[in-house]
Amino acid sequence: MKVGLIGFGNTGKAVASVLIKKENFDLMWVLRKTPKQEKRNVSEILELESDNESYVYSLENTNIEKLFDDMPVDVIIDFSSEHGIYSYGEAAADRNIRIISAISHYDKKEIDFLKELSNKTTVFWSPNITLGINYLIFAAKALKNIAPFVDIEIVEEHFRQKHGVSGTAIKMAEALKLKPSQINSVRAGGIVGRHQVIFGFEYQTIRLTHESISREAFGNGVTFVAENLMDKPPGYYQYEDVFKPLLKGTI
Amino acid sequence: MKVGLIGFGNTGKAVASVLIKKENFDLMWVLRKTPKQEKRNVSEILELESDNESYVYSLENTNIEKLFDDMPVDVIIDFSSEHGIYSYGEAAADRNIRIISAISHYDKKEIDFLKELSNKTTVFWSPNITLGINYLIFAAKALKNIAPFVDIEIVEEHFRQKHGVSGTAIKMAEALKLKPSQINSVRAGGIVGRHQVIFGFEYQTIRLTHESISREAFGNGVTFVAENLMDKPPGYYQYEDVFKPLLKGTI
Amino acid sequence: MKVGLIGFGNTGKAVASVLIKKENFDLMWVLRKTPKQEKRNVSEILELESDNESYVYSLENTNIEKLFDDMPVDVIIDFSSEHGIYSYGEAAADRNIRIISAISHYDKKEIDFLKELSNKTTVFWSPNITLGINYLIFAAKALKNIAPFVDIEIVEEHFRQKHGVSGTAIKMAEALKLKPSQINSVRAGGIVGRHQVIFGFEYQTIRLTHESISREAFGNGVTFVAENLMDKPPGYYQYEDVFKPLLKGTI
Amino acid sequence: MKVGLIGFGNTGKAVASVLIKKENFDLMWVLRKTPKQEKRNVSEILELESDNESYVYSLENTNIEKLFDDMPVDVIIDFSSEHGIYSYGEAAADRNIRIISAISHYDKKEIDFLKELSNKTTVFWSPNITLGINYLIFAAKALKNIAPFVDIEIVEEHFRQKHGVSGTAIKMAEALKLKPSQINSVRAGGIVGRHQVIFGFEYQTIRLTHESISREAFGNGVTFVAENLMDKPPGYYQYEDVFKPLLKGTI
Repeated sequence: MKVGLIGFGNTGKAVASVLIKKENFDLMWVLRKTPKQEKRNVSEILELESDNESYVYSLENTNIEKLFDDMPVDVIIDFSSEHGIYSYGEAAADRNIRIISAISHYDKKEIDFLKELSNKTTVFWSPNITLGINYLIFAAKALKNIAPFVDIEIVEEHFRQKHGVSGTAIKMAEALKLKPSQINSVRAGGIVGRHQVIFGFEYQTIRLTHESISREAFGNGVTFVAENLMDKPPGYYQYEDVFKPLLKGTI
Repeated sequence: MKVGLIGFGNTGKAVASVLIKKENFDLMWVLRKTPKQEKRNVSEILELESDNESYVYSLENTNIEKLFDDMPVDVIIDFSSEHGIYSYGEAAADRNIRIISAISHYDKKEIDFLKELSNKTTVFWSPNITLGINYLIFAAKALKNIAPFVDIEIVEEHFRQKHGVSGTAIKMAEALKLKPSQINSVRAGGIVGRHQVIFGFEYQTIRLTHESISREAFGNGVTFVAENLMDKPPGYYQYEDVFKPLLKGTI
Repeated sequence: MKVGLIGFGNTGKAVASVLIKKENFDLMWVLRKTPKQEKRNVSEILELESDNESYVYSLENTNIEKLFDDMPVDVIIDFSSEHGIYSYGEAAADRNIRIISAISHYDKKEIDFLKELSNKTTVFWSPNITLGINYLIFAAKALKNIAPFVDIEIVEEHFRQKHGVSGTAIKMAEALKLKPSQINSVRAGGIVGRHQVIFGFEYQTIRLTHESISREAFGNGVTFVAENLMDKPPGYYQYEDVFKPLLKGTI
Repeated sequence: MKVGLIGFGNTGKAVASVLIKKENFDLMWVLRKTPKQEKRNVSEILELESDNESYVYSLENTNIEKLFDDMPVDVIIDFSSEHGIYSYGEAAADRNIRIISAISHYDKKEIDFLKELSNKTTVFWSPNITLGINYLIFAAKALKNIAPFVDIEIVEEHFRQKHGVSGTAIKMAEALKLKPSQINSVRAGGIVGRHQVIFGFEYQTIRLTHESISREAFGNGVTFVAENLMDKPPGYYQYEDVFKPLLKGTI
């Protein structure tokens, strides 16, 4: 699968390194906002021994339509920012390039734009594209549906410097219809990220826990989604659409 | 719902106490093998302040058909033993009394008998009737279906005196197609029961944990199943049949 | 060791049952405020098969000095209430009876009184007499002394109905000089009690966790303290005085 | 503090990067076995923006005595291998350079050699130099001393490829006099490293858990030890000698 990556911050880099190492993926180019590291070889920047021959391009200096035509891709992975979609969305949809967006927050306006694009091509959005967090949300919603009376609390732990409540925890709380007071935030040392949903029954307790090891989890999330979107017709998809066919036969 | 309870060991007693306290359940009688405590008031034995008027009967001294006719019930809860079903199964099925069996192990012969009875009445069997453990098995199977490549290990912890690997852990391992070596057993002090399924991904870890607080969890499992079987026609049911309609809309 | 127990609430009862079962302890009497269950046999009330012959007495109807003289004990265990000490303290100290108080809170006035009594007899006080919680406080203080720069947070979990922050967590926070905001309280279902101290380092995390199984832990705490106070001269003791000689050779 | 580092594998590199970033430490040189990366700037190799001017030297091409005289250091950190000590030990001791060895295993012969060197200089050895693991061993030994009757089990978790039982877990088991069967090993995905010691009491459970985030923990362990050895006279030291003065007043 030929892939173009948009966004090259810390997470974008981790995703690029996963894509370069993964056999059935072929990273074609990286597009970033500023001309930093422009024209440099991606493997070289990431210090990977690989014969991948992708380079960094900047939005400032690149004609996107020409890039798409010169180095065509099957799918675009977007780790840029909330408004990144406007710079490439139309051009991608017109060329039937799939769009996988991992932007952590969109306003309604951007979501509407994604949906408009999905008339022409396959569009996917997840604010946290790791498999684990999305599974946790699915599993927690399932238990709440089975036992609507159960007490639910979230404990999220992150490194000391992280400001505010974890966005992922907020998303979980929304999915479970919890109040903000049901999220407990622990900040200590260098904890990469740990989310636990506690389900308190009268005589038993269930804990669903997700522990992040490193940012590369986003890369594996991307390849998981890309592989499972491969045969999907144009339309607007979210993680649950990817899970659904895989869950057949679970129950 | 009028309920008859078969079996009055430690778990049977915990289940009886939950049934007596629960508003929409009416415990009519307890049937046990030996005449121990026969004719005594169940609430009194359990030291519950309640106006429930059920008594203990023994298989030795009781005509089951007469018991079923004199004090009719909607559902029978079986916490007796592997062969208990032969003593009351036909009589119950003929009277269209639902059967909920929580026997931890049946041989094929007994399962066949349950299925035969299910032609006439609603029959349910779960080797561990707690909601939590069955949810854990469901959630673990779901994750394995989503990510068949993931590493899975089980850690089960129980009180020091518990012999052998936990039967529940073995059932989980079977459901997940794990090898016995993937179950790790910890025996220490008075741990009531803790089962954890660990899913190891390259860059993230997911843990599904069930912690038992007390035996009464079996009682809540019984009432949960009974309430959800209420409208089911004759047939053979397992926990996943109870979960299925509740999970609609989860995904 | 001959023991008298003062206080017979839920925890007092759990402690009595541990004392009755423990070989080298001999429960002589239980003293409670009101005449409820007065003169009844303790084993019978607790439904224990035992030949222990202790009975319940009430403060209302009992002359304490006479009780102490008629049925002498080596140690008094106090699970009554903040002001209980005034009803028996002098009489016990005059007879050189050791006093072990497990009252969860005393004002300065009562602590001063305990110290005064400790001129005549061995007096011990712990607001949570379980071995586990006191060990956790010791171990947490040790780590804070080793690494004063480490981030510390407490997560305490209890059953839904428990009001306010756990008193034990507050005591831990005081011992570690934490702010109240560093305590996170989770209330869910029937969790008996779980305290976790999280130490966040830059590249590693340490968790000290205490999980309560049942109230009987207080009984085992009492026997542990009583055995280790046996050879102590009159004086005022706390848990760390009990731990100190046992820790010789740890480092 | 001027530091020389011996050994430049993955852990050696992580340690170097911590030393370079840490204010009161000054990395003077790195010595490794083979001439790989010889004469290259360490910060450059590690991609750190720093004005540290240390370079890589090889044992093959370097006269150790001359290195020690030309670029004198206060302390040598050894992350090389079991026999590395023979290449620099005498020369260091003669110059009164402190030696901190983090070699994971030594035979008696090497330990004897370290002790011999300790007549002339301050020598420290720890097979796992992280603060966290050593604290865990201390805290676990303390609890075993307090409650020798308690049940103890270890659960260690690591990434799938790790062969055999964790050496750290084996060391813990030795310190606690456990049998090998009391260590449970979980291998799954990319778990960096997690060691849990479970203490099972009759009515309560205590868990001491250490979670590794990354190899840099070894670097922080080195600086912690080095700072606390600063004022120590020649002699042979282990982690408990470093902890001991810090624990004054804990109890």
